[in-house]
Amino acid sequence: MEINMGKRTDVAIIGTGPAGISAAITAAVRNKSVLLLGSADASDKVSKAHSIRNYPGLPDISGSELAKSFLDHLEKMNIPVTDKKVTMIYAMGEYYSLQIDQEFIEASTVILATGVSFGRPFPGEDENLGRGVSYCATCDAALYRGKEAVVVGYAPKEEADVRFLAEIADRVIYIPVYKKADADAMPQDLFPDHSNIEVRRCRPQAISKRESRMVLTADCGEIETDGIFLLRESVSPGKLVPGLELDGNHVKVDRSMATNLPGLFAAGDITGTPYQYIKAAGEGNVAALSAVSYIDGLAART
Amino acid sequence: MEINMGKRTDVAIIGTGPAGISAAITAAVRNKSVLLLGSADASDKVSKAHSIRNYPGLPDISGSELAKSFLDHLEKMNIPVTDKKVTMIYAMGEYYSLQIDQEFIEASTVILATGVSFGRPFPGEDENLGRGVSYCATCDAALYRGKEAVVVGYAPKEEADVRFLAEIADRVIYIPVYKKADADAMPQDLFPDHSNIEVRRCRPQAISKRESRMVLTADCGEIETDGIFLLRESVSPGKLVPGLELDGNHVKVDRSMATNLPGLFAAGDITGTPYQYIKAAGEGNVAALSAVSYIDGLAART
Repeated sequence: MEINMGKRTDVAIIGTGPAGISAAITAAVRNKSVLLLGSADASDKVSKAHSIRNYPGLPDISGSELAKSFLDHLEKMNIPVTDKKVTMIYAMGEYYSLQIDQEFIEASTVILATGVSFGRPFPGEDENLGRGVSYCATCDAALYRGKEAVVVGYAPKEEADVRFLAEIADRVIYIPVYKKADADAMPQDLFPDHSNIEVRRCRPQAISKRESRMVLTADCGEIETDGIFLLRESVSPGKLVPGLELDGNHVKVDRSMATNLPGLFAAGDITGTPYQYIKAAGEGNVAALSAVSYIDGLAART
Repeated sequence: MEINMGKRTDVAIIGTGPAGISAAITAAVRNKSVLLLGSADASDKVSKAHSIRNYPGLPDISGSELAKSFLDHLEKMNIPVTDKKVTMIYAMGEYYSLQIDQEFIEASTVILATGVSFGRPFPGEDENLGRGVSYCATCDAALYRGKEAVVVGYAPKEEADVRFLAEIADRVIYIPVYKKADADAMPQDLFPDHSNIEVRRCRPQAISKRESRMVLTADCGEIETDGIFLLRESVSPGKLVPGLELDGNHVKVDRSMATNLPGLFAAGDITGTPYQYIKAAGEGNVAALSAVSYIDGLAART
């Protein structure tokens, strides 16, 4: 789905697991416009589950069957999934601005339902974010024209970004930290058409600055470069939304799924344990109804 | 199902709507013994819903289909429903004692999932509870041998209790406050075999005491009697569980669905709005897992 850049969406939902899908369904039932952003084949954590016994009404269903039921439900309600990654969310007062690649879209409310797939940050990562560390190759590639960069990729789909970056930068070192299905193809044959991409198999450990350059410390040694891209499945919520209050690794919410930022809600694993499909689906519903109330309140004020 | 009175149940769940059923399923998946108490045909509020569009994975399902899916799920997991009414729940320290008719059963933890079908109490009801006002004919009938009683019944199934009471009391005035499917049979033919039961169609308004007798004030006039039975679908949670902290009409819970009483949890409509099936199912899951943790903590302490 192409995003309509001109129109402000009522509810932008980040994440297509049970929480995000449930939120999208309920917001749509309540006649709000919905932008559902995330993987088009529903959350990996759902589809890869072997067997789910405690989703009431769907006894002993496999993860892939449950994912299919969710996607069928979206399809029946004409809710498309926009398979794009949101890199930043800014609170603008009465709306939110979401950065998607190099574009910005506006939404009156946001529901964060990205799960907990983000890991702990590397030592040195937080301090250098925006100062040599980036989460978005599409956004920041232009800064590396004629320079070098290291990319740490957490999923095969990031390889497209590596190619894009290699068309601008002089040299790219790519460190894939996932196992590829066709293991034989890894690592040297990954980019046959890009002689300026070097693939290294190692485990990153820390990030630091050395004069004006960046250093990635890994188990295969130190790599000095101009910039480091960390392309994770999802960005941790505190980095995605400046000013968002956390509770440890999770987003702090009340029983209405409201965060500390008015109009921004969260649902599912991102709000804390237990990590359960039906809990996530229930929270998505509550978050959507809270977003609807919030929007109706905005309308009443203007 | 006959209740095994001798054995302490791990998790007693009161209510067979989406919250109670979800709690039962998850507690059973976690290998805890479960006593699920409530209507055997799932909650009326589910089965009578015309169409439910936002239960993810079951698009556009009717209430009766959803109720059937829930009951099928219980059956596949061999979780029976015990169709009995709990009239009181007492915190006993490391366990709870549940009064069911005139028996008591023990449970390590309790999950309240009775919904919000209880109405506001009548003026004078709270003050006279246990002093002429009763919620349980089976429990208190013996007190009315040779006396008179008024019964206010909120559902046809209470008629059995009226018959039972009439076999002990001299005279019973029955006030049904529901509409019967076979309206023609109401009110005088309701108890053809019990000449000491008088059926009156009126709307109760208040309860008071006059010397040693009780007075029910209704739109059809005052009725003086020895005792007043109020047989509602469910007892309000504050009366069901002495010491339970409320938040208005709802049970106060935290995000783990814990109440102020250790080992007692609540889920679904009883915990507050929004009144939604998927929200209730999610909360039942969380309450069950919190109960499991609590039980495991008890085991670790002994």
